[in-house]
Amino acid sequence: MADNRLQDAWRARLVASERRRFLRAMAALSAGSGIASTGSAQAPQTAGVHDVPADASKVQGYPLEDESYGTRSQFETEVRRRFKTATPQSSWTMTPLESGVGIVTPSGLHFERSHGGTAVIDPAKHMLFVHGMVRTPKKFTMRDIKRFPAMSRIMFVECSGNGLTEWSKPTMRTVQFTHGLTSTSEWTGVPLSTILSEVGVKPGAAWLLAEGGDAAAMTRSIPLAKAMSDCFVAYGQNGEAIRPEQGYPLRLMVPGYEGNMHIKWLRRIEVSDAPFMTREETSKYTDLLPSGKAVQFSFEMEAKSVITSPSGEMTLDGPGFHEITGIAWSGRGAIRRVDVSVDGGRTWRNAALQSPVLPICHTRFRLPWRWDGKEAILQSRCVDTTGYTQPTLGQLIAVRGLNGPLGSIYHLNAIQSWHVASDGKVTNVHAY
Amino acid sequence: MADNRLQDAWRARLVASERRRFLRAMAALSAGSGIASTGSAQAPQTAGVHDVPADASKVQGYPLEDESYGTRSQFETEVRRRFKTATPQSSWTMTPLESGVGIVTPSGLHFERSHGGTAVIDPAKHMLFVHGMVRTPKKFTMRDIKRFPAMSRIMFVECSGNGLTEWSKPTMRTVQFTHGLTSTSEWTGVPLSTILSEVGVKPGAAWLLAEGGDAAAMTRSIPLAKAMSDCFVAYGQNGEAIRPEQGYPLRLMVPGYEGNMHIKWLRRIEVSDAPFMTREETSKYTDLLPSGKAVQFSFEMEAKSVITSPSGEMTLDGPGFHEITGIAWSGRGAIRRVDVSVDGGRTWRNAALQSPVLPICHTRFRLPWRWDGKEAILQSRCVDTTGYTQPTLGQLIAVRGLNGPLGSIYHLNAIQSWHVASDGKVTNVHAY
Repeated sequence: MADNRLQDAWRARLVASERRRFLRAMAALSAGSGIASTGSAQAPQTAGVHDVPADASKVQGYPLEDESYGTRSQFETEVRRRFKTATPQSSWTMTPLESGVGIVTPSGLHFERSHGGTAVIDPAKHMLFVHGMVRTPKKFTMRDIKRFPAMSRIMFVECSGNGLTEWSKPTMRTVQFTHGLTSTSEWTGVPLSTILSEVGVKPGAAWLLAEGGDAAAMTRSIPLAKAMSDCFVAYGQNGEAIRPEQGYPLRLMVPGYEGNMHIKWLRRIEVSDAPFMTREETSKYTDLLPSGKAVQFSFEMEAKSVITSPSGEMTLDGPGFHEITGIAWSGRGAIRRVDVSVDGGRTWRNAALQSPVLPICHTRFRLPWRWDGKEAILQSRCVDTTGYTQPTLGQLIAVRGLNGPLGSIYHLNAIQSWHVASDGKVTNVHAY
Repeated sequence: MADNRLQDAWRARLVASERRRFLRAMAALSAGSGIASTGSAQAPQTAGVHDVPADASKVQGYPLEDESYGTRSQFETEVRRRFKTATPQSSWTMTPLESGVGIVTPSGLHFERSHGGTAVIDPAKHMLFVHGMVRTPKKFTMRDIKRFPAMSRIMFVECSGNGLTEWSKPTMRTVQFTHGLTSTSEWTGVPLSTILSEVGVKPGAAWLLAEGGDAAAMTRSIPLAKAMSDCFVAYGQNGEAIRPEQGYPLRLMVPGYEGNMHIKWLRRIEVSDAPFMTREETSKYTDLLPSGKAVQFSFEMEAKSVITSPSGEMTLDGPGFHEITGIAWSGRGAIRRVDVSVDGGRTWRNAALQSPVLPICHTRFRLPWRWDGKEAILQSRCVDTTGYTQPTLGQLIAVRGLNGPLGSIYHLNAIQSWHVASDGKVTNVHAY
């Protein structure tokens, strides 16, 4: 009897607890699914909402599940934010660099750039077709591709439009919107040279076309020499399959080159003797110069750095010690040094680089700073292993001019300035 | 009129589409919330379930959201799996190493080990209390801790019980269950030496106690020399806040030492002149020898490696080329070399190590293999920078014996053998 009563009481509590859980899940669903509000197709990511005990050591924690794929804490709220383009399919979302730590970008916060939305592709049916100036055109299934010897590389991908709002005047308020079109992951896949040796490239070939299987059928020309040297087709990102918005199930990786050459949802490679002059490398992704001529094929992302903390919209909570930290990267090699100025570029101090310092990868830098409570202008300036030094905005504009679309558009890699007011408020400014 | 009709049609389609989305979300919720089945408190992680078009390039992809925290593809299903302990609070889940690529473990698949479930802690209220043989005992808020100079480190954490079922006979069928209690992340936090210098360690101090804020109040003794050399308190994991099950909001990192010394939900550090002889380092986490004596404080995780593909339960789809790949790691430094045998240890070939090869970190190795279709026994053997060579199971048992709990229990770092049958089926065997 006593046992039965206990069991009944236990059952009642279990039912009550499941009911609470269900109600929480429903509340989270209606808050996150946007039936009434945002129109999001995603269920909420912070779904594991648990009661918060006054002292967690006085109650059992929640149980480990038999099968699980974990998510982040219910207290964490960082999100990618979309730049409000006319349509949400041809659009981009930006990584919240201000809350980032280390060099890896969480896959859930890796920036997105799509020209036709995120394609939904069944990996069991996906194929990569390689043809053109080759001896044996072939179709490769994902199974074929995963059978080849693999490689991994921790590297950044940056959209060449990163910062496009910032040429003429400081426009965006946070580093997420001034610099958030760059992210770093560990990518895994197969060297493109392996794929190309399977089909046999014919003499005279010098370029290839890579085409995505999305609604935009994104296409870019890649020099064959680059393809053979270090390009790869990736199916892995940060230890698991690449994320849908990164090109699942297969993406072309072109280390150090413009982000949109890293063709997502890769379905076709055509080998040729000349570039293909696609829309995305003629009417877009060229750099208009003051002379009226445009530079075509500015593939490499030049060395760049930015202070992520303190950065725009933050407020220093008083004078004293603050660590200045940020990231630096170069499409041409590794970062050799980063200098930081707190006086708008008059004097510079060498920042510490966090190991590992990898080529074509975000490198975290840090510098201790004792703020005296007076106005300050924070800047970072990096040098890569080619000896190239990140330019000031003035130096960049002297070469590039401001007569491109949006007052020059791609490849803005100038030094970023953050103004610290005497009340600690940090804002985006131009200081050059 | 035409415009109105179009708009009405568009609205009708939108309503229909939102209804479909809602129904999908509800279906996913009831499938995943376990009201009727598994009892899971988590909403489904593959919530972004989209219709799969026959040709993704012929329809618009799904839109980019204004605010998002992405999740993986609806086609991906790898999960951590729980070892069926008596209670799901004192339990562990294991990383699916067989599907891993590269060296980073996705945070959602990082192994879990808890003694009292996952604690739920509000970071705004969490404090780390440091006291004992110190000049100024102090309480640090998370805000205080994040104000200190930071550091990041890509490193593994391994439970010293990893493989505990495998001493006497091959028991588990997959590498997830034989080796899945090791994972690698980029961790970010503050050197423990910084915290200790803030409180001022008194002369004569030699040890400290680290205590977790979970229901188990997990406590372990750490030598002060280790604490000062490379320990840190971590609030970041793979570029964002550490996951709840990894000790959110704060975890002690003890590079290369037993996993359970990396105290999760860290709330207290007490400095002393002697170890504290806690339950978790006396009745547990000691190594019983054949002599009947037990080794106490076998902190370091010795060098270990395992082939993750091919591995248990896989089937080779015929003779020919197969890449052998796996991971190697050492708590005492970096991996210097990995050799692979396909004949049960009679002959060995040197595997390629994927860069970066970092100290106290998973290192990916790969070896091309042409399978002749005959029976084979695959093994990997690593050497670390101290010159230590991973032992055979026979060598390990000769030293450790089999009279511990479960036939010796912790620190099994022996060479793993996978048997390949002539039909391609791979199974876990002992071969030594």
